[in-house]
Amino acid sequence: MDVDTKPASPFRTRAEKAQEREQKRDAVLTAAVRMFNARGFHATSLDDVAASLGISKPTIYHYLGNKEQVLIECVTRGLEPLRVAAEQARSEEGRGIDRLRRFLIAYARTNMDDFGRCMVRTGDELLSPASAAEIRARKSEIDRTLRALIADGIADGTIAAVDVKMSAFAIAGALNWPARWHDPNGPSGPQDIAVALVDTLIGGLAPR
Amino acid sequence: MDVDTKPASPFRTRAEKAQEREQKRDAVLTAAVRMFNARGFHATSLDDVAASLGISKPTIYHYLGNKEQVLIECVTRGLEPLRVAAEQARSEEGRGIDRLRRFLIAYARTNMDDFGRCMVRTGDELLSPASAAEIRARKSEIDRTLRALIADGIADGTIAAVDVKMSAFAIAGALNWPARWHDPNGPSGPQDIAVALVDTLIGGLAPR
Repeated sequence: MDVDTKPASPFRTRAEKAQEREQKRDAVLTAAVRMFNARGFHATSLDDVAASLGISKPTIYHYLGNKEQVLIECVTRGLEPLRVAAEQARSEEGRGIDRLRRFLIAYARTNMDDFGRCMVRTGDELLSPASAAEIRARKSEIDRTLRALIADGIADGTIAAVDVKMSAFAIAGALNWPARWHDPNGPSGPQDIAVALVDTLIGGLAPR
Repeated sequence: MDVDTKPASPFRTRAEKAQEREQKRDAVLTAAVRMFNARGFHATSLDDVAASLGISKPTIYHYLGNKEQVLIECVTRGLEPLRVAAEQARSEEGRGIDRLRRFLIAYARTNMDDFGRCMVRTGDELLSPASAAEIRARKSEIDRTLRALIADGIADGTIAAVDVKMSAFAIAGALNWPARWHDPNGPSGPQDIAVALVDTLIGGLAPR
């Protein structure tokens, strides 16, 4: 036996255990979010999610909790890239319209991935009042960034003197809607769709 | 007794019976759609709808059918004004952008009323496959009108050379979204909101 080679220990380190736990949580959430998106929250049972992974429902309870807690974690993962994009957009320099455009493309893209779709589709009525309030607060934070970017663009003259609140609603609606119609197996990829939608919103329908 | 005045008959005419039946259906649907919108479809029971009207669940079965049938009727009522607006827009004369604008304002407005909100919020996953397919076919008809109006405007030069399909998606998303955020008791009425959203889409964000 080579002196430099230790036999593989059957005991995992703390870091390995944490990593394994994270991988298990990821696997459960990915299986769950796809079923929520395909069948709807009410028609999905944790038994089906567990069966698709060859595990038991108590294993899901152990790693994530009950079905509502699994949903909240899915929605939270769907919001996280928006939070990061909003933070980056707020700290960037440059013309308002350019900062807004970058933020909107990131916003549109993330709404087309598994967790983003689930986040957009999850109405308050699926959540307990406390969870609904928490998710709403995080969404409001993103909406505040959207409005601030529009206002910055109006201030520096790169965005027209639009109604900030109504424009933010129009943008959010246009960019949330792919969560309902986008087919991940369709011909257009999320980046192309995101750019097309954002350019339509920026350019408008009237000829220039 | 005046010879011209007949005593009120305790027997209703066929027309009176049909009208009464329609009024009862309307009352049930209005109560149901408000509960669906407020609590979600799954959290609403026909027992609660019946109780709110002082009637029994079998009475609802008699006039409308089971809970899914009540939902389908609500969605159908939400689609009807869109179908009418689409038919009108197709038959109108005039510049493409003007016909589109009138159609979009009607579209946005109806999506903010009780049945329109329910229609937008009702995803395929709440319906049986056959009903989902039927509702999708009716929505596609409206989407085809939307795309045809955009194409007409591009053809007559009153709309820019946009990507028709993507613009239709952006518009539909922006104008469906109020079904999630519009507060019927809020400060802005549906007409003002509809005009603001449509003008944002037509004008775009970039200065002209």
